Amino acid sequence: MEKNVLANTLTLDSVRESLIRQEDTVIFYLIERAKYPINSPVYHPSFAGVSGSLVDYIVKHTEALQSKVTIEELFQFTGASININKTIWDMYFNQLLPLFVSEGNDGNYVQTATCDLQCLQALSRRIHYGKFVAEVKFMDAPEDYGPAIQAQNRDALMELLTFKSVEEMVKQRVKKKAMVFGQEVCLGDSKGKYKVDPSVVSRLYEEWVMPLTKKVQVEYLLCRLD
Amino acid sequence: MEKNVLANTLTLDSVRESLIRQEDTVIFYLIERAKYPINSPVYHPSFAGVSGSLVDYIVKHTEALQSKVTIEELFQFTGASININKTIWDMYFNQLLPLFVSEGNDGNYVQTATCDLQCLQALSRRIHYGKFVAEVKFMDAPEDYGPAIQAQNRDALMELLTFKSVEEMVKQRVKKKAMVFGQEVCLGDSKGKYKVDPSVVSRLYEEWVMPLTKKVQVEYLLCRLD
Repeated sequence: MEKNVLANTLTLDSVRESLIRQEDTVIFYLIERAKYPINSPVYHPSFAGVSGSLVDYIVKHTEALQSKVTIEELFQFTGASININKTIWDMYFNQLLPLFVSEGNDGNYVQTATCDLQCLQALSRRIHYGKFVAEVKFMDAPEDYGPAIQAQNRDALMELLTFKSVEEMVKQRVKKKAMVFGQEVCLGDSKGKYKVDPSVVSRLYEEWVMPLTKKVQVEYLLCRLD
Repeated sequence: MEKNVLANTLTLDSVRESLIRQEDTVIFYLIERAKYPINSPVYHPSFAGVSGSLVDYIVKHTEALQSKVTIEELFQFTGASININKTIWDMYFNQLLPLFVSEGNDGNYVQTATCDLQCLQALSRRIHYGKFVAEVKFMDAPEDYGPAIQAQNRDALMELLTFKSVEEMVKQRVKKKAMVFGQEVCLGDSKGKYKVDPSVVSRLYEEWVMPLTKKVQVEYLLCRLD
């Protein structure tokens, strides 16, 4: 990521627009994953014919394929630079997934693993987008961020990056999106049942997406003047 | 696909529910593809470091990976039995895609090709689901279908399978879904702008998805008594 190129093409507006659009992507993929039950054999440490679990296999080989032909910056789970994908992986499988999929096994293992990959990549892209968020915030007010960066003061940076009212608005908006996108649309009145519980999506943003994005922002800024 | 297994697990209701749920999937993936402009280098007959186009490369290798660990029936573009994927491929790239993506090039080639793969697989799965649709219709009224099958009469089968009022309802429903899922959701009033033109989705179903599904149904039934 070349900082000068970044500064020329990113604006506060373009970054904000991308963050909002990425919410839709994250929610669409969660809804797609919720079509299938937990399908636990996907996560067993060894799957027929594969070394490791099926989800490890699908993620590793799909990303290898994608990176072979990649020009753009991808946020991959195997390899990469400022990277908190290990944290995202653990959060997704150990905490988030059990909150929004049902118990059971319908045998659709490859589709399940592919949906997990889509969710992981969408979440990772969103969270690592913190680098771009941090860059535009820095460019907008270098005089505010400079001293905290020079002092390598994480707490001061975290405070500068935190806007409680914006975070509250994001939580409300993703909850509304989960209601709109997760409803069952019929020609008559829609039924009041959601494919993914909207409060889980709001919790995902509050507890994981926003804190992890800020962590990426702080890491990025700490090196911004190197 | 074992016919007796099918007959035991499929019902008219379960098939109908799956068809309705698959509409959401198709529309989500079209909306995701519409995030990117056409990105024509993805379709050039040779892409840096790859033999063939980038989309050929991503589809071929992803499907090879998926089929290596697949237990369930996948509807793949490379290989398979009753299969009209060549028609779906041509329809998607030559007719549908230009109707719902913008001009231009933003360099997100791998993501674009991956979205194309998702759309193709969702459309293929939906269209080849015609085999299950045909099976439940046959089981529900073997006395109606039997004579037409024995006579190998395609026109009579097509007529038995066609319900104009249901097709009209599907067109209306997918249009409504495109409006709901493709809107920009804000905390205030939503803006009246859709990420994918709802009339394109309704046309997709009218001109391609429903006719191609019926073609699959006819092909399946012609062999049902073999």
